[in-house]
Amino acid sequence: MRVLGVDPGLTRCGLGVVEGGLGTPLRLVEVGVVRTPIDQEPALRLLTLQTEIDDWLERLRPDAVAVERVFAKANIKGIMGTAQASAVPMLAAARRGLPLAMHTPSEVKAAVTGNGRADKNQVTAMVTRILRLQVAPKPADAADAIALAICHLWRGAAQDRIAQAVALQRAAR
Amino acid sequence: MRVLGVDPGLTRCGLGVVEGGLGTPLRLVEVGVVRTPIDQEPALRLLTLQTEIDDWLERLRPDAVAVERVFAKANIKGIMGTAQASAVPMLAAARRGLPLAMHTPSEVKAAVTGNGRADKNQVTAMVTRILRLQVAPKPADAADAIALAICHLWRGAAQDRIAQAVALQRAAR
Repeated sequence: MRVLGVDPGLTRCGLGVVEGGLGTPLRLVEVGVVRTPIDQEPALRLLTLQTEIDDWLERLRPDAVAVERVFAKANIKGIMGTAQASAVPMLAAARRGLPLAMHTPSEVKAAVTGNGRADKNQVTAMVTRILRLQVAPKPADAADAIALAICHLWRGAAQDRIAQAVALQRAAR
Repeated sequence: MRVLGVDPGLTRCGLGVVEGGLGTPLRLVEVGVVRTPIDQEPALRLLTLQTEIDDWLERLRPDAVAVERVFAKANIKGIMGTAQASAVPMLAAARRGLPLAMHTPSEVKAAVTGNGRADKNQVTAMVTRILRLQVAPKPADAADAIALAICHLWRGAAQDRIAQAVALQRAAR
């Protein structure tokens, strides 16, 4: 199972592909950040992001896409761009019929650090340890994208285990 | 000059194509509303919207796209969907190299009614009168999309006139 995690943004959009399954260690396939100039037309910035995400999906063929669920913050102007940016991986996944999940920041933090209020350094440190990386992924958006993919793999695996247990129990009746 | 106006939304997205030029009366080419089920996955709703907008652009070949600029309101949950929906026409225009403009609701209201705080009924009434329609466009999202296209045609024309005047004055020196 291979998952593309996306930490959406126009200025910096984190992308990370992680693969792994039940009982096998997770492996980092690729990580990166798409940057678009802050003084460029928003529509062109979205287009750059779309081109990059399409390229990642073509090259790395993930089985699912996990996107950070965007919430309103104090910075309303920034949040609009982030919401628009999040539409890009959503559309890309839907167009390809790929399973898509939206995870909240606290779900992601809880999945990788055990603490839903972990800070960026803790997330980066745990991501580095989980994937046995020599160097910590930078910037934080890249680490967040990887954390999203890990969260999705682990939550998905847990949900699959529960579904399997339920199915077994039903079959046993 | 033919303009596609888009009043973005996931539940209802208004689309209206208007054509006209300086000194010629405006003409409504087509108006409609894309609806997507509220209980459907947001990514699929975005995809439906993308398919429809692509179809309109292919069939009606507008020269420019005008999208309502989304602002934060009290309804934060709705605003995220609206922001994501607005990314669809932005991307569609950018992909085709079409000029794109974002107009605020008050710019649009001021352009068609002369009052930036006009209500929905006033906008619908003026749109109906300007385009000499037999029947008022419904729902309000459809009328808003037409109003956006009209706003764009008129503001664009005014800006062109100013640019022309400046160019003439420079040439005369």
